[in-house]
Amino acid sequence: MHRLKNLQEKLIEKNADVLIVQTRPNVYYLSGFDTDPHERLVAVFILKNHPPFLVCPHMEVNQVQSVFTEGKIIGYSDTDNPWEKIAGHLSENNIDIRTAAVESSISWARMQALELMNNSISFIEADSMINELRVIKNDSEIAILKEAASLADKGIEAGVAALKEGVTEMEVLASIEYFLKKRGIREMSFSTMVLFGGNGGDPHGNPGDRTLRKGDGVLFDLGVVWKGYSSDITRTVFFDHVKEDDRKIYTTVLHAQQKALSLCQPGESVSLLDKVARSYIEQAGYGSYFPHRIGHGLGIEVHEFPSLSAENHSCLKEGMVFTIEPGIYIPDQTGVRIEDDVLITKEGHQLLTAFPKELTIIPS
Amino acid sequence: MHRLKNLQEKLIEKNADVLIVQTRPNVYYLSGFDTDPHERLVAVFILKNHPPFLVCPHMEVNQVQSVFTEGKIIGYSDTDNPWEKIAGHLSENNIDIRTAAVESSISWARMQALELMNNSISFIEADSMINELRVIKNDSEIAILKEAASLADKGIEAGVAALKEGVTEMEVLASIEYFLKKRGIREMSFSTMVLFGGNGGDPHGNPGDRTLRKGDGVLFDLGVVWKGYSSDITRTVFFDHVKEDDRKIYTTVLHAQQKALSLCQPGESVSLLDKVARSYIEQAGYGSYFPHRIGHGLGIEVHEFPSLSAENHSCLKEGMVFTIEPGIYIPDQTGVRIEDDVLITKEGHQLLTAFPKELTIIPS
Repeated sequence: MHRLKNLQEKLIEKNADVLIVQTRPNVYYLSGFDTDPHERLVAVFILKNHPPFLVCPHMEVNQVQSVFTEGKIIGYSDTDNPWEKIAGHLSENNIDIRTAAVESSISWARMQALELMNNSISFIEADSMINELRVIKNDSEIAILKEAASLADKGIEAGVAALKEGVTEMEVLASIEYFLKKRGIREMSFSTMVLFGGNGGDPHGNPGDRTLRKGDGVLFDLGVVWKGYSSDITRTVFFDHVKEDDRKIYTTVLHAQQKALSLCQPGESVSLLDKVARSYIEQAGYGSYFPHRIGHGLGIEVHEFPSLSAENHSCLKEGMVFTIEPGIYIPDQTGVRIEDDVLITKEGHQLLTAFPKELTIIPS
Repeated sequence: MHRLKNLQEKLIEKNADVLIVQTRPNVYYLSGFDTDPHERLVAVFILKNHPPFLVCPHMEVNQVQSVFTEGKIIGYSDTDNPWEKIAGHLSENNIDIRTAAVESSISWARMQALELMNNSISFIEADSMINELRVIKNDSEIAILKEAASLADKGIEAGVAALKEGVTEMEVLASIEYFLKKRGIREMSFSTMVLFGGNGGDPHGNPGDRTLRKGDGVLFDLGVVWKGYSSDITRTVFFDHVKEDDRKIYTTVLHAQQKALSLCQPGESVSLLDKVARSYIEQAGYGSYFPHRIGHGLGIEVHEFPSLSAENHSCLKEGMVFTIEPGIYIPDQTGVRIEDDVLITKEGHQLLTAFPKELTIIPS
């Protein structure tokens, strides 16, 4: 696999002996094997001078074999210590690991296990070399992300179709997920949000038994996991009619999003996307009601590198995929967020999510 | 809160200056605040000689205030470095942290941030002191776990009701989750499993578009998150009729489970639960088809301390809650698992899940 070779070359540049990848998304990215291992170890070891190997529970070995063909697969049972199996493989092959590149999210427990194998081991950070690969999506990844985004659009459609006076947030949420799961979506990319009226005023609100009333805003935030990739869309619609304050807020958010989107092209500074949207919202008088960054990278993870904040001074590149999602939240009154998934193309950008964004009033 | 005081006393015993808790379940257990912070830091700092404090994103501060009243809440924005805010609070209050007790799953990145605050900091492992508390459920936790388990029973009922010839695994799964989510369940405790016939023969199989045929076994494995606590149930039923091999396998698994359950009482060795079930399955000739441990602790997490394996030589105590879930998996042929949630009581045990276990044939 090209990705493994690429990282092996980076290892050699950095003079490290091994790259140990043990987070679910990176294991999937590098091996094609996607599983939730709970607390169990599933890891890919990329070695400077030897073929890579993959460690996983015995009961996963069959599934791994069907996708990972680049090296040995080491299975372990619930009563084995996987680190002893790894140590055995390394010693049989006379592989010495003195410098290990690891993900910065690796746990202290796993670092201690590595130190037990070699007490003079030293660690270097591997995030940047993996992020550098993952941030640029290839054609097959883009094709999947487009499908994932279309399915998210369908989720919004299902949610809008479920709106009627007196329905609860959770009933609408259940309808959305039923619609998607029947069509084969096994996992949402995060807990679906359906928030009515004042509940939308909390940017991290929780759907519950609040019932839909005329004049409510309805904030939907949802995404699906499709072939291991995530989508993430937010739309806000209004039920029966829209209050004048809400109309002004909606228009402000929509224009702020359009301003950020208009900058989405190769070479543009990431920080500027956040700044133009934020200053537009500030000028409209809502500056203190936009408490989060403008967006985040999107791919295998629903929140991944890069973070799109005013502090990110890197530049956009062709093949990046991320969200643009300004919002205004007035506690206990109303919340509006509009979020799209965006692909940077050679000439500019393409929106992967497509549900309409003009102010929409759903008849009661 | 009693739990914070208890841990402060343990800190003093161990001569540590601070306990830093930053995993979602432990933060919830100690603060009452439950959120998915994604990559952002949410942490409780319990100090030897000062009141505790909680660090979280600004936009969560309101929600935290409603549950955490034992100490200061330090909010940070997406452009702040939360570790600088923590360092500021510590230095304002002349708090020196030389020895920090941390969860063994803490990331290398967070340990490095702590080392930046104090480059002579040393770490000790905090898991055991927290696990020791969490493993014994109090009355209000038990009440919630019972509700969670009843909801899981209802999920199985909904799944059974959705069985008909030609339905797909994903359609049945969608019906189960629709039923539960309409009633207010926001999150399942893990990806729901519905596996037909030979698909059940893979203990980590994935539901898909396999359609239901007469004579299939149907393996359901599901759970809900209810008030922050998890349930986990597995039932296997048969559609239209049961093949003789399947009947023998079912009876073997059921008896193995009953043998393990009959030992569930205070003072019994955990390892024995696994051993009696395993040797029963071995004697029936299916030893190599039971590849996992007998069960796992259950509470805020669907898989938590303790692990119920043959290697665990600790003893059962009143107030523990865990699963007992033997299974037999014949690849491409059939899979049977029966799983209950079990509470250890003063006199013995109580099953929290109650869906019937006698061999059930669903008429076509």
